[in-house]
Amino acid sequence: METKFLAHLREIALLQEAVGLAEWDSQTGMPEDAADYRADMSSYLSGLAFDKLTNQEMANYMAYFTEHPDELSEFGQAVFAKAKENYELDANIPADRNQAFSRLTSIAHSKWVEARKQKNYGIFKDTLEEIIAFQKEFIPLWRKDEATPYDVLLNQYEPGMTTAILDKVFEQVKLGIMAIRQEIADKGTAPRTDFIHRYVPVEQQREFVIQVAKDLNYDFNRGRLDDTVHPFMLNLNRNDARITTRWDEHDFPMATLGVIHEAGHGIYEQNVDAKYDYTPLAGGASMGIHESQSLFHEIIIGGSESFWQREYPLLQKITGETFADIDFETFYKGLKETKASLVRIESDSLTYPLHIIIRYEIEKMIFNDNLDLGDLPTIWNDKYEEYLGIRPENDLEGILQDVHWSGGSFGYFPSYALGYMYAAQLYHAMNQDIDVEAVLATTDYTPITNWLTTRIHQYGSSRKPNQLIKEATGEGLNPQYLIDYMRKLYFKVYGIK
Amino acid sequence: METKFLAHLREIALLQEAVGLAEWDSQTGMPEDAADYRADMSSYLSGLAFDKLTNQEMANYMAYFTEHPDELSEFGQAVFAKAKENYELDANIPADRNQAFSRLTSIAHSKWVEARKQKNYGIFKDTLEEIIAFQKEFIPLWRKDEATPYDVLLNQYEPGMTTAILDKVFEQVKLGIMAIRQEIADKGTAPRTDFIHRYVPVEQQREFVIQVAKDLNYDFNRGRLDDTVHPFMLNLNRNDARITTRWDEHDFPMATLGVIHEAGHGIYEQNVDAKYDYTPLAGGASMGIHESQSLFHEIIIGGSESFWQREYPLLQKITGETFADIDFETFYKGLKETKASLVRIESDSLTYPLHIIIRYEIEKMIFNDNLDLGDLPTIWNDKYEEYLGIRPENDLEGILQDVHWSGGSFGYFPSYALGYMYAAQLYHAMNQDIDVEAVLATTDYTPITNWLTTRIHQYGSSRKPNQLIKEATGEGLNPQYLIDYMRKLYFKVYGIK
Repeated sequence: METKFLAHLREIALLQEAVGLAEWDSQTGMPEDAADYRADMSSYLSGLAFDKLTNQEMANYMAYFTEHPDELSEFGQAVFAKAKENYELDANIPADRNQAFSRLTSIAHSKWVEARKQKNYGIFKDTLEEIIAFQKEFIPLWRKDEATPYDVLLNQYEPGMTTAILDKVFEQVKLGIMAIRQEIADKGTAPRTDFIHRYVPVEQQREFVIQVAKDLNYDFNRGRLDDTVHPFMLNLNRNDARITTRWDEHDFPMATLGVIHEAGHGIYEQNVDAKYDYTPLAGGASMGIHESQSLFHEIIIGGSESFWQREYPLLQKITGETFADIDFETFYKGLKETKASLVRIESDSLTYPLHIIIRYEIEKMIFNDNLDLGDLPTIWNDKYEEYLGIRPENDLEGILQDVHWSGGSFGYFPSYALGYMYAAQLYHAMNQDIDVEAVLATTDYTPITNWLTTRIHQYGSSRKPNQLIKEATGEGLNPQYLIDYMRKLYFKVYGIK
Repeated sequence: METKFLAHLREIALLQEAVGLAEWDSQTGMPEDAADYRADMSSYLSGLAFDKLTNQEMANYMAYFTEHPDELSEFGQAVFAKAKENYELDANIPADRNQAFSRLTSIAHSKWVEARKQKNYGIFKDTLEEIIAFQKEFIPLWRKDEATPYDVLLNQYEPGMTTAILDKVFEQVKLGIMAIRQEIADKGTAPRTDFIHRYVPVEQQREFVIQVAKDLNYDFNRGRLDDTVHPFMLNLNRNDARITTRWDEHDFPMATLGVIHEAGHGIYEQNVDAKYDYTPLAGGASMGIHESQSLFHEIIIGGSESFWQREYPLLQKITGETFADIDFETFYKGLKETKASLVRIESDSLTYPLHIIIRYEIEKMIFNDNLDLGDLPTIWNDKYEEYLGIRPENDLEGILQDVHWSGGSFGYFPSYALGYMYAAQLYHAMNQDIDVEAVLATTDYTPITNWLTTRIHQYGSSRKPNQLIKEATGEGLNPQYLIDYMRKLYFKVYGIK
């Protein structure tokens, strides 16, 4: 029976892999006019997968192994637990409501695009209202023992995470960042940044980032780098974890740090234990843990002075005379400038969590306090003014900037900040075992990759986020590590003793 | 019932499309180490498709509509006829024998590669014997009313084709070519060809062939060009007909003519009527008709003086000084040199059919005369000496040169020569309606594309090869057009009055 159950899960995984390949292809190079045919194929394959996830055979496995857990091996029990979690999310929603929601989100995406064009939230508001109504309809069907409606959504992206924890943690981070920003404003010396925008041809950027990704132990025999409008990592399987980037010839850090970020996701997937292949335990543990790996690479490593001491000479070599007049210190400090910005994805590593906290607070108001959606732009703008000292002049640079809500992803944003906090906490713990900066100054980063693989990657989704973090760092989520990390880094960059 | 039947066929087509995408990806850029995972996915999806092609539901449709053809629309009847043809090929072979044969051909491929390395047919012989034994086991299961065992195989690639026809046609072509070759040997002036091997960087070749493919009306919004070891065209659907090529910087005609060839296949698929989508009538009518389109583009257009009068200046422009000293006449004649060669895929457009005829005669001996496989290399070499005047020095440049037999493809080779004969016959018929050379001298080849679309492309597989050729040209297969075409072209190139 366990064998049959695993074979059933394998079929689902193979269908999802095919859907993944179709998605990758459609974003990287599918001929323009093939979109309608591709939609036919993808929705057919997704439908097959969804059917197997929720059909009578699956229901039978769920019922049988709930009654007879002893008939499962230890491995089978772990797989079953995860499969059941997924099953309950999927199977409790009536199929017709699920389909109606899918239809709505595809329309919503166009509405959102249209609203952005007109810089007018009003165009998107009614659709957003419908999406939220669906979520509110689904929450009771998903709810197990979560304390509030929004906790139900949080739990989907970060199992075990609650508003009770986040309220406390985010308050601490917010105060910490605001204090650092105040000190920088009072006493800091702003770095020179003009050279950041010097012209670097795509081919030079590509050569550089591919070498950097290799240095970080992203395995190009088990992945590849492509160009897309929206960068992503997509793991078809542990030996095929593809990453993408976009390029700006007048902003080389965008692609460089973007590729490091996606490589961090890819390295995670490449190092999950092969025994989880074709089960729901293959793949990262949660959105937050996944972001902890991408952000550890992008921000912690990609923000490390030792790392750049090694990699800057390579960049200089590849770019010829472009940065010949920029000494290392100038280069490094320029890279780590901090400056309030209206747009999350353009923000720096000090202000980034504030963008997330604003979204968290608003999402919580939507689901726990039934916020009037007409008030959204004003609330959004007020919060930017309060936390970042700047106010959006229109909806495009305010409430309409993120795609997430148009896809029905509420409760997702906190993962980014969680990942960042986890990353800083992992960095602190890693430093108890190895001298991370010393490793980054060498030509072999393997000790870092191995540390992360041993404590995080190998487990796939077989452990919950809080268990992973506790076992890797000796304690639960503690935002103080992030605050300490940021204070130390930014004070150095801004010359504050 | 017809609706349900068409929906069933649609599922098969969508699964086959997914298998196609997986195959394209694995040949164009899948990470090296992902091969085993890809094999899992492809064989799972192929298995789903094969199951739907042969399962009880399909059997029921076959039985029902055979009894009740009147319950099908005209369109449904055409689809049913083709589906039934396919069904009988697939369903008559016991599943376990089919699987055993699949396993054998994958082993056979490695054996063939190994034998090539050692230039030793002996290493491959036993495996080839097994493959042939399987084919001989399957032939009675496939056989309908074909006159000889080899006719059964022919019929799979070129419905309606027989050894009775081919014996006659090939004899005529063989004599025709040998006569032309004799005249060239006696009276011809060989063209200068040294410049053909001048260095042309891949990027220049790419720019040139992409422009040429566009000129030929291959639609890049519904296709794309990639690099692979073995060039191919793969149509996922009519809006996604992808082509590939390989490059040799010291032999630019290889990629140029190769891309024109694959573009010819792609143009065919791009112009099949959309009403056949997701049915077995989508896609080309047969291997021979498909080759007629690729070879019409590669040989007839790509061998036309008017065509090169237009395109040579473009090549010169893109390649800078490379061909500055080569006047048009020298260039064109050099491109059309003919010279006996041992290897089919390196042969020119005059000797090419002889390579095919040799294979045809040998395949016929294998299946109709139970040839002793130990004699194969000698027979092969004797025939090369007899028809082409050269003798292979080892098995690599002789009997081991083609991959086809290791995959169990017997009866396939004649398609190449059929395609060439069809192409010449279509060229003759086209010239009754439009002045083809005059069109090729302009900047708009649309009249040619339209002529082919109207008479061939649009029908997909809804008409049989002989019907297509008869309606397009007013008569059945007639090899004299090819002989006349070759005589005229080569006599001109070799300065024979």
